[in-house]
Amino acid sequence: MCPSKVADGGERGWIVPIGGAENKEDNPRILKRFLDLCGGRDAEIVVIPTASQLADTGSRYEDIFGDLGASRVDVLDFDTRRDCHEQNRLDRIERASGIFFTGGNQLRLSTILGGTPAAKLIRERNASGITVGGTSAGASILSEHMIGFGKEGASPQADSVRLAPGLGLTNRFIIDQHFRQRDRLGRLVAALAYNPFAIGIGLDEDTAAFIGPDNTLEVEGSGAVTVVDADGLTFSSMAQVSENKPVCLLGLTVHILVAGATFNLHTRKASAGSLAQSKS
Amino acid sequence: MCPSKVADGGERGWIVPIGGAENKEDNPRILKRFLDLCGGRDAEIVVIPTASQLADTGSRYEDIFGDLGASRVDVLDFDTRRDCHEQNRLDRIERASGIFFTGGNQLRLSTILGGTPAAKLIRERNASGITVGGTSAGASILSEHMIGFGKEGASPQADSVRLAPGLGLTNRFIIDQHFRQRDRLGRLVAALAYNPFAIGIGLDEDTAAFIGPDNTLEVEGSGAVTVVDADGLTFSSMAQVSENKPVCLLGLTVHILVAGATFNLHTRKASAGSLAQSKS
Repeated sequence: MCPSKVADGGERGWIVPIGGAENKEDNPRILKRFLDLCGGRDAEIVVIPTASQLADTGSRYEDIFGDLGASRVDVLDFDTRRDCHEQNRLDRIERASGIFFTGGNQLRLSTILGGTPAAKLIRERNASGITVGGTSAGASILSEHMIGFGKEGASPQADSVRLAPGLGLTNRFIIDQHFRQRDRLGRLVAALAYNPFAIGIGLDEDTAAFIGPDNTLEVEGSGAVTVVDADGLTFSSMAQVSENKPVCLLGLTVHILVAGATFNLHTRKASAGSLAQSKS
Repeated sequence: MCPSKVADGGERGWIVPIGGAENKEDNPRILKRFLDLCGGRDAEIVVIPTASQLADTGSRYEDIFGDLGASRVDVLDFDTRRDCHEQNRLDRIERASGIFFTGGNQLRLSTILGGTPAAKLIRERNASGITVGGTSAGASILSEHMIGFGKEGASPQADSVRLAPGLGLTNRFIIDQHFRQRDRLGRLVAALAYNPFAIGIGLDEDTAAFIGPDNTLEVEGSGAVTVVDADGLTFSSMAQVSENKPVCLLGLTVHILVAGATFNLHTRKASAGSLAQSKS
């Protein structure tokens, strides 16, 4: 599913993938910033807990966004593909100023939402300016090429990773989450090796990439965002290598970004941002 | 401890760090190649099991190198610093065509051997042409700056890693071993961030870097060697960051090498080597 076209003179909304386990209590800076981008006290948030199979996942975010001051929060569960065609649900998405996907299993999101009017409408709404974010599985689903599952902890191998089509708000990056906590560098690098056009974004827990309309990624949270850029790759053995064997990849560029630093997904330039001025 | 000078017209011997858990039975290709570099059937190997506190570590390698055809294998344990001054042990090092350090704890090696005549002699012998290698802790000890211990599994942090002086056969690289199996990228990157002059070499298990007299690194074994080059670093927050906080590092170059690929530690160029010709 390709990203929706942004209207002439318009601006895409923010895309906010979060690495999972974001702070929800004493310092919910990620969720607060997400809410601010959705309009703060005027925000009307739709929470989609479809990835999760826990009964209280949606209501938990409803409480959090409510406590942070949202004007309205609706939990919109899509349990079947038929739900994704229901007009009253689509109307809620149409009115929302922000959409948030909870964690769980990203293949539940892609199998239930994929190709439905709900998915199409969310893409269109983001292209027309509203903020869409998600945590963990809800982060993975945002891009066009999604890591469905894969091996953790090994060097990249030919069969490290299984990709699936995601929601497709953008095709510029591939997300992985719980990144260092679950040692997912190998599978992210394998995903990029299939086709180096995309940029790999590995999100630590309690860490988010706030991706603005200008494709500048800003980091928020307590961990790091590992950006892997395969654009300068000088050699890859991906096409020749047999299963369970490591892949040879020469010339990857890696940036480890923390809050304050930025990366432009268009120019592929990393910047220390406010960190460079922090010497006093 | 700085590397010994190579005599005019002479050549340094091979340096062979191995990532631990090398195949010792059905396909001991790494130990076989090590032995070949020591002279094959003429090889006189000294095995130093000081890192290990298991009684049979030395004798196990004695058997393996014997079975592979070495002319002579001596296990030379150094249990105290006084042992490292004993003339008959130094004489054995003087006669050896290859020296092999077993795994265990690299801080045992550095605390017992560091600054003794045995350490000095091993450096001199390598500078004069003999092969020196080691596995796991025995790999870490080979370079001048050694990872003593550190955190596994996290993004690089200011306190991810503790360096200690190693044996100092070379200062061109910093080794980490059991690399992907124990998720040590963060600590290796942190070590490089302290001073980007060195090149980071992360060795998977059953994988070795065979580093020739011309500083070309060749990969052998079933896993990958992750080379991290911080020479192009455009920003590092290492000097400002507080403990337990991730470090911002922009512009790392990473190569994932497998058997057949090479990296020149002098020119910092990676090559696909024989992999590039494997298309038939």
